[in-house]
Amino acid sequence: MFAGLLLLSAFSAAAQKEDSLMIRKIADEILTNGKAYEYLRVLCKTVGGRVAGSPQMAKAEAWGVKSLQDAGADKVWLQECMVPHWVRGAKEQAWFTIAGKNTPIDILALGNSMGSSPKGVTAQVMLVNSFEELEQRKNEVKGKIVFYNYRFNDKFVRTFQAYGDASRYRGGGASRAAKYGAVGVLVRSMSHAADNNPHTGAMNYDSAYAKIPAAAVGLKDADKLAAAISSNKNVSVFLKTNAQMLPDVKGHNVIGELVGTEFPEQIITIGGHLDSWDPGEGAHDDGAGCVHSIEVLRVLKAIGYRPKRTIRIVLFANEENGLRGGTKYAEEAKAKNENHYFALESDAGGFTPRSFGFSMKPDQLAKVQQWTDLFKPYGVTELTAGGGGADIGPLGRTFGTPMSGYVPDSQRYFDIHHARSDVFENVNKRELELGAVNMAALIYLIDKYGL
Amino acid sequence: MFAGLLLLSAFSAAAQKEDSLMIRKIADEILTNGKAYEYLRVLCKTVGGRVAGSPQMAKAEAWGVKSLQDAGADKVWLQECMVPHWVRGAKEQAWFTIAGKNTPIDILALGNSMGSSPKGVTAQVMLVNSFEELEQRKNEVKGKIVFYNYRFNDKFVRTFQAYGDASRYRGGGASRAAKYGAVGVLVRSMSHAADNNPHTGAMNYDSAYAKIPAAAVGLKDADKLAAAISSNKNVSVFLKTNAQMLPDVKGHNVIGELVGTEFPEQIITIGGHLDSWDPGEGAHDDGAGCVHSIEVLRVLKAIGYRPKRTIRIVLFANEENGLRGGTKYAEEAKAKNENHYFALESDAGGFTPRSFGFSMKPDQLAKVQQWTDLFKPYGVTELTAGGGGADIGPLGRTFGTPMSGYVPDSQRYFDIHHARSDVFENVNKRELELGAVNMAALIYLIDKYGL
Repeated sequence: MFAGLLLLSAFSAAAQKEDSLMIRKIADEILTNGKAYEYLRVLCKTVGGRVAGSPQMAKAEAWGVKSLQDAGADKVWLQECMVPHWVRGAKEQAWFTIAGKNTPIDILALGNSMGSSPKGVTAQVMLVNSFEELEQRKNEVKGKIVFYNYRFNDKFVRTFQAYGDASRYRGGGASRAAKYGAVGVLVRSMSHAADNNPHTGAMNYDSAYAKIPAAAVGLKDADKLAAAISSNKNVSVFLKTNAQMLPDVKGHNVIGELVGTEFPEQIITIGGHLDSWDPGEGAHDDGAGCVHSIEVLRVLKAIGYRPKRTIRIVLFANEENGLRGGTKYAEEAKAKNENHYFALESDAGGFTPRSFGFSMKPDQLAKVQQWTDLFKPYGVTELTAGGGGADIGPLGRTFGTPMSGYVPDSQRYFDIHHARSDVFENVNKRELELGAVNMAALIYLIDKYGL
Repeated sequence: MFAGLLLLSAFSAAAQKEDSLMIRKIADEILTNGKAYEYLRVLCKTVGGRVAGSPQMAKAEAWGVKSLQDAGADKVWLQECMVPHWVRGAKEQAWFTIAGKNTPIDILALGNSMGSSPKGVTAQVMLVNSFEELEQRKNEVKGKIVFYNYRFNDKFVRTFQAYGDASRYRGGGASRAAKYGAVGVLVRSMSHAADNNPHTGAMNYDSAYAKIPAAAVGLKDADKLAAAISSNKNVSVFLKTNAQMLPDVKGHNVIGELVGTEFPEQIITIGGHLDSWDPGEGAHDDGAGCVHSIEVLRVLKAIGYRPKRTIRIVLFANEENGLRGGTKYAEEAKAKNENHYFALESDAGGFTPRSFGFSMKPDQLAKVQQWTDLFKPYGVTELTAGGGGADIGPLGRTFGTPMSGYVPDSQRYFDIHHARSDVFENVNKRELELGAVNMAALIYLIDKYGL
């Protein structure tokens, strides 16, 4: 308690004033001369979707190098890592059939899934609303296509909770159905969008069971299929997917640095992931996080702030279906015995700012929370316990590095997540920029005061 | 201080728990069975833009009556008021000319402005960046079309501040230029949108000067025109607008009530304005505020909460170019000696929640601020001093009624404000619903605890 009071008084009114002016300077630079939006446009429109191992992956890496150089990094390099090489193949096809009449449904094969046989698979469809229902009706599964119609729960105001709840069906649904003899699965998209776009994403096979085809269905077609099943005894589904998993290939983390003036050995990592799913342009997921991170470096350079500690921007390879980039980054850091002081990730979209979540010791969090009022004018109103990011997770597990995740508003995220609609046009310039403002402010404060 | 502590302890942990459960119930009902989005779709798609006095005004009133009845109001009625009747007339035309070559520019006549002569007006154009520049160069104005190129200031994080700063040029620019002999004005749109849509809005003539035509220009065309002027000595503009102001006609506030069980004479007014500008569908401005308000009534009824005080939903007539609805509502309340306990307005769009602003006595605000944590799970993180709304303003001035304005995120608002892009498709269902959740929670707390 007494230590806490000392801490509070240490962060004096004069310091607050100075910091407030510096953050205003950061904001003015980003809101009037910001480059995040233009960097993102180039990534989305000249590269587009960029699954690990794809030709677009290499193009995106080149974009990352160029953008980090343009932003003013002292040095930029590639860190090689092997990445999985999943390919979607030709456009999927699917329809359901009642009494000889086919109704097409819009699907996307799930990431990592194997294609059906070249002729496709036709089978009676069995709708289940949950894994519990699958278990109860396991004797009916054999030879069928299982349709997981688990609904994205609208009651979660923080939509990532609804995603955590529903994405089990995408991740593990195929093998759980294959265990009982299913020949394919359809999964209701993890979304509350008003459109019919299917939302893909990673799945994993349990090697004990057959690797059956698996695809996501858009919400309108999911409802249509569910209605058809509820009013007809025999509904069959035709499903043709063309995906395959090829041998691993070389990919890269793209890294740019501002070398610290006082403690260059203390590394502050800031990043997002460079890979994305293929149906859209990976604009919010996670082009936004990449350009947020690059913009943090750019603005510090532009306003002439030389960090005491080394600021390292990392555009991670292969978050979506392997986490190989984040894993490699931590492995090499360990091998080199690097000193990882703090890590920040942006991988929740380019929407309007809300908060930062922190995984660090309570006294560190208490220190950080003293800065709350400095963020409020820019949209971050809370600094809360718990947070980080998939890509910086291995760093945290390796070193116990204090970590944070940037939390923008989540209401629109699952409208576009892993879908055709995750395109540049759905990113708002100012919302994107304000993310970079708050991230740069946090990095400035941590660099200045330490943890 | 002691009274404050008593107040704090009066709002006990048990009450907090009960309120938290009630607000959860409100949120669950709105997020799973909400009707605000569907009400808004019908308003936007079957009525569309609805300027005071237009045929769409009457259609919107009928929509309001029907929606309030559908939501479960005890009674619904119309309150007559005279409204101005401005008509845009045929589509405007404009271009600028350099050495005989015409470049079209996209314009919208400003609301309340008079049309040019039927043949249009052609004159040399004079760009000014501010009123100060206009005054300095007043001797050059005569016979010219003045182009106010004042920029919407991106540095204001709260975009309504940028609007307050820039909208002076729209409101008073024509007469200030006419004073020095200008024959027309063009005004750079009050927006930071990435598109070229012009943004209209109200202007007013000073009767001492000529009523010259006045129109808004989209940002890309404004930049194009500014570039042309900066590199050419002689740039002329052709401007043809076709608007006129007709005699006042009858309009109506649409009102629906839930009668209070304990203090029926104490009226809580909740509202938005039913009129809108014509280029879009008035989806955010202020269809959102109307359906927010109706949804508050609907949810209280749906979850079986009978208010102690009378809850009155008002869809105000003619906010945009006259404020006649709000004025009439306060006048009649005064004539009837009504008891206006509290008033809440939503007129800042259907975006994700941020805060409420309050105009009330300090002890009332202190009481309200105790509830802050109850709102946080639903996106309202601050309850601040200062706020209200244009339509409830006359009520506040007449009775000193405590007032509040709902504050959603403002980053996207001026992208679409008074422009063709203010359409239903640019409203997000969940963001809209969360506005209603927070408004209903506030009304529940004020009804239960009083002020």
